[in-house]
Amino acid sequence: MRPMLNMITLGVSDIERSASFYESVFSQRRSKYSNDGIVFIRLTGIVLALFSHKALAKDANVESVGSGFKRFSMTYYASSEAEVDEITSSVEKLGGKQTKKPQKATWGVYSSYFCDPDDNLIEVAYNPVLPLSANGELDI
Amino acid sequence: MRPMLNMITLGVSDIERSASFYESVFSQRRSKYSNDGIVFIRLTGIVLALFSHKALAKDANVESVGSGFKRFSMTYYASSEAEVDEITSSVEKLGGKQTKKPQKATWGVYSSYFCDPDDNLIEVAYNPVLPLSANGELDI
Repeated sequence: MRPMLNMITLGVSDIERSASFYESVFSQRRSKYSNDGIVFIRLTGIVLALFSHKALAKDANVESVGSGFKRFSMTYYASSEAEVDEITSSVEKLGGKQTKKPQKATWGVYSSYFCDPDDNLIEVAYNPVLPLSANGELDI
Repeated sequence: MRPMLNMITLGVSDIERSASFYESVFSQRRSKYSNDGIVFIRLTGIVLALFSHKALAKDANVESVGSGFKRFSMTYYASSEAEVDEITSSVEKLGGKQTKKPQKATWGVYSSYFCDPDDNLIEVAYNPVLPLSANGELDI
C-alpha cells in the first residue's frame, strides 16, 4: 500500500444538505461523477465524498449505531492568523456552527473549529512551525 | 477558503499504537515534526495526524463522549481488483481487523474494509468508473 489516501467519505443524514454546505464552504462544485446516491467534491490532494450514513455502514459491514463525538477532524491550513479569522467569519455566514473562536493553543497553533450539518469537525489553522508548499500543501 | 484539506486528525486512545499501525500499513515513517503528543504521517495530498481523542475534544471545544459508528471512512484507491486483494491480505497480516472481504458492490466498486485500532474504517477500493491520474490520485 503506497502512502496515499484518495478519499474521505462522510456518512451524512442528508446528502443534498451536506453537498450544498461543502460546495459553499470550498467554493467548489460537485464532480460530474456525483449522482443521487453519492456526491464527490474534489479538493487538492483528496476527494471529499458525501454518502448516506446508513449506506456507509452497510457497505462497510458494520453496525450503523453511533452517537456523540466522532473522534476525528479535518484541517485546512491557512497561511496567516488573519486568513484564519477571515475564513472563520465567512464559514459562519455560510451556516457552519462554530465550536471554538480563533485562538492560540498552548502549543502555538492559531485555530478555530466549526461543525458541518452532521457535527463533523473542521479546523481552520495557522501553524507557524509546519511549512506549507507553494500550492498550500503541508510540506512536512 | 480554497478547495483544500491539509490534514485528517484521528482522535485515538493510544497514539503510539496507532502510529505503529499506520506506519506499517503505509510503509511510511512518521514526520520529523511529530512529538510525544501528536504524530504526523505524510501521505500523498494529505497528512494523517494521530492525536489523543481527549486532547482533540478539548482543542475543538466539544464534548468528548461518543460511541459506536463514527460515520466516516477513508479510502485508498487501487488500480485493479488484484491490488485490492493483495493489499487486503497484507493489511490483515499487520493486524487490521477486516470488516468486509473484497467483493463487488451493486454499483460496481470492488472493495474491502478494515478497521484501525480505534475502529476507524479504511476502505481499499477499485472503481472502474473513477479515473486515477498517473500518481494514483483520483482524477474526477
